[in-house]
Amino acid sequence: MQYREIFENAIGKLKSEQRYRVFANLERDTERFPNAIWRPDNGPARDVTIWCSNDYLGMGVNPEVTKAMAAAAKKHGAGAGGTRNISGTSYPLVTLEDELADLHQKEKALVFNSGWISNLGAISTIADLLPNCLILSDALNHNSMIEGVRRSGAERQIWRHNDVAHLEELLAAQPHERAKLIVFESLYSMDGDISPIKEICDLAEKYNAMTYIDEVHAVAMYGERGAGVAERDGQMHRIDVIEATLAKGFGVVGGYIASTAAICDAVRSFAPSFIFSTALPPAVCAAATASVRIAKGRPELRMAHQRQSWLTKHALMRAGLPVMANMSHIVPVMVGNAELCKAASDMLLERHNIYIQPINYPTVPRGTERLRITPTPLHGDAHITHLVEAMVDVWNTLGIPFAEASDIESPFANDADCTYPQKKDCSFPQMKRAAE
Amino acid sequence: MQYREIFENAIGKLKSEQRYRVFANLERDTERFPNAIWRPDNGPARDVTIWCSNDYLGMGVNPEVTKAMAAAAKKHGAGAGGTRNISGTSYPLVTLEDELADLHQKEKALVFNSGWISNLGAISTIADLLPNCLILSDALNHNSMIEGVRRSGAERQIWRHNDVAHLEELLAAQPHERAKLIVFESLYSMDGDISPIKEICDLAEKYNAMTYIDEVHAVAMYGERGAGVAERDGQMHRIDVIEATLAKGFGVVGGYIASTAAICDAVRSFAPSFIFSTALPPAVCAAATASVRIAKGRPELRMAHQRQSWLTKHALMRAGLPVMANMSHIVPVMVGNAELCKAASDMLLERHNIYIQPINYPTVPRGTERLRITPTPLHGDAHITHLVEAMVDVWNTLGIPFAEASDIESPFANDADCTYPQKKDCSFPQMKRAAE
Repeated sequence: MQYREIFENAIGKLKSEQRYRVFANLERDTERFPNAIWRPDNGPARDVTIWCSNDYLGMGVNPEVTKAMAAAAKKHGAGAGGTRNISGTSYPLVTLEDELADLHQKEKALVFNSGWISNLGAISTIADLLPNCLILSDALNHNSMIEGVRRSGAERQIWRHNDVAHLEELLAAQPHERAKLIVFESLYSMDGDISPIKEICDLAEKYNAMTYIDEVHAVAMYGERGAGVAERDGQMHRIDVIEATLAKGFGVVGGYIASTAAICDAVRSFAPSFIFSTALPPAVCAAATASVRIAKGRPELRMAHQRQSWLTKHALMRAGLPVMANMSHIVPVMVGNAELCKAASDMLLERHNIYIQPINYPTVPRGTERLRITPTPLHGDAHITHLVEAMVDVWNTLGIPFAEASDIESPFANDADCTYPQKKDCSFPQMKRAAE
Repeated sequence: MQYREIFENAIGKLKSEQRYRVFANLERDTERFPNAIWRPDNGPARDVTIWCSNDYLGMGVNPEVTKAMAAAAKKHGAGAGGTRNISGTSYPLVTLEDELADLHQKEKALVFNSGWISNLGAISTIADLLPNCLILSDALNHNSMIEGVRRSGAERQIWRHNDVAHLEELLAAQPHERAKLIVFESLYSMDGDISPIKEICDLAEKYNAMTYIDEVHAVAMYGERGAGVAERDGQMHRIDVIEATLAKGFGVVGGYIASTAAICDAVRSFAPSFIFSTALPPAVCAAATASVRIAKGRPELRMAHQRQSWLTKHALMRAGLPVMANMSHIVPVMVGNAELCKAASDMLLERHNIYIQPINYPTVPRGTERLRITPTPLHGDAHITHLVEAMVDVWNTLGIPFAEASDIESPFANDADCTYPQKKDCSFPQMKRAAE
């Protein structure tokens, strides 16, 4: 057995399929974000603008958040010192869980080391505890949710993405008394589309199902207090389990669920991924708590975020770039070819000092490769202008198709009034679902 | 379907079996560790001594480590801002991986959000890439390794714990050319026993198998530079994949593997748990790097750790407490009954301000419930005296059996010379395996 060769061949295959990923070595600077230093393997370090971070609100560089982390590191130490059960439950971690339960108006919250782990641990444990449970999973659910569904021993059925008629068909075919768990996201991050939460909750009520929502791309950013799309839509109280992350809108790291005391207690007690992991460090928890508190109290952060996202979308659309329409803060621009997508990303970096990672298969289906742009409140209008010019140059140079004029569907109510970049006070649409 | 009732019943069952876990809310203080503030749900906060932390060397409260974390938080921010592929690979993270590769003298290292994830992701990915792989797994492997083994589609066989004859029997029954992965730990944390690494490597060589070792309870603490038991035993270069943690001896959080460039690249490219997780924050990476560098250069920390561990063991043994013999830094004291074990832990806390979490099923087999004591270099001799007196009082009060005189096997070469606590310079045994 030639072990080394096998691994080398597997990597070679990825390379030949244009699927080999090169990680950009980035040095963020709290005082200059979204600008950062990029350190290529070969060549000198350079200043670049990050346009694809999931630190959507820039909370990771918020001075109150970083100060909370630094202070807790000095006061409580760099680590938790154990699993949750064996000396690792710190006062800052308990405080964070209380803060998250309050955010989502649930009895309890439970923090995990990552969002990936929270979905794996929570979905599998909940489904396994329910006798003869049927999991109904949206077709475009994130990998971590699929892993949770697969790890459980429960039967599963996939409903077509955001298709409530299909979901109802599947639910109606089951006995009313059978345990059912509907697993879905509020905001699908690669397309930026938003799910019909109210309709799903209506079906769950009608057919006696539990609801499990993933709000990782929505917390901090939607709802009056930043609790997510379910809060914005007035549906949060109808959801049984809310799963989300501390790593994106909140800018730190870690995942969590918020639910009833009994469900949190059950997951806490039965999920091996939770039981056998060292707890998050007190400093991480303190930073996350600071971030959650800031997000709760400052809707103006969400306003600024939406403004910059919509300005970016609008400016790219007006320049004829093929922005994929959606009603969220995510700005996906279609390329539709793996090699071109990589080339566009490389050229943006090399020629324009703009860092946008190409999104290729398996993260998105083949043929839908794209650049996924994520404006933050810290991306100023000048950043946006630079981005648009750079993208147009790259599209022209590489011969990537621009959008047909008829493809451009502006989501702006008063498009004519919004002549970016001259008019900076243009209002952005209130965040309503496209379906409405 | 009465959903709430189902979860409440599951919890009720745990309670009736004495398996319900109550997490102690602890506030560590870098300047007073191992002392900390315990905040019970009902009752005032109290000062306690932590005797069960896996921050084995107290690196989590090392001022150089906490300063590194605080400085990086202020400079680089509280989070990574993305998955490794999408803007989350920070300069401090790349530096950490280089440091870990150097520690283990391997081509590359790869950092995960936790040790649990590193075992899940690495074992399953490696085994799945090897055609028709057979995994040979030690019977007492940690849950995270079992999860990795199970998640892979590979066939698995369990060899009796540390039984190289049994391992050889299983290996010999397979075709030489078949891919085989031997998965084991260097130091099993609940009993504190150490595996015969050299003999396992000999078998791997003879039967053409890959070796995967978990050194989570050994890194920082064993070997000339703290690379673990494989380093101490001169076997590190023979191990294909070393998995370990940044959360225990290194005092921070996170897991990693160190291996060939091809294997790290393959796991990096194929493991969903790696691909779809937000990267560890720069501040966590900076703290871990500082810790690894300190551990590499300061064998005196390991000496101090071993000294306090052996003093503790010896003092408990001399007092007649049933210490489970092993040649590591772990000090398990047998109780053998779930209720008594919980009662002993409660009484140590209530009456003596000593925090040692009871270790019950499923972490250890029923009937082998124990208190697992983990001395650090920061547990002074006075702490040890207090611990011994408290344990004797609890054992007497609860009527827990002391050891028979004949049960006491002192691991000290010159027991008579080592009259703890009077003689403080007593030498501790060089860390050799019990088998030698």
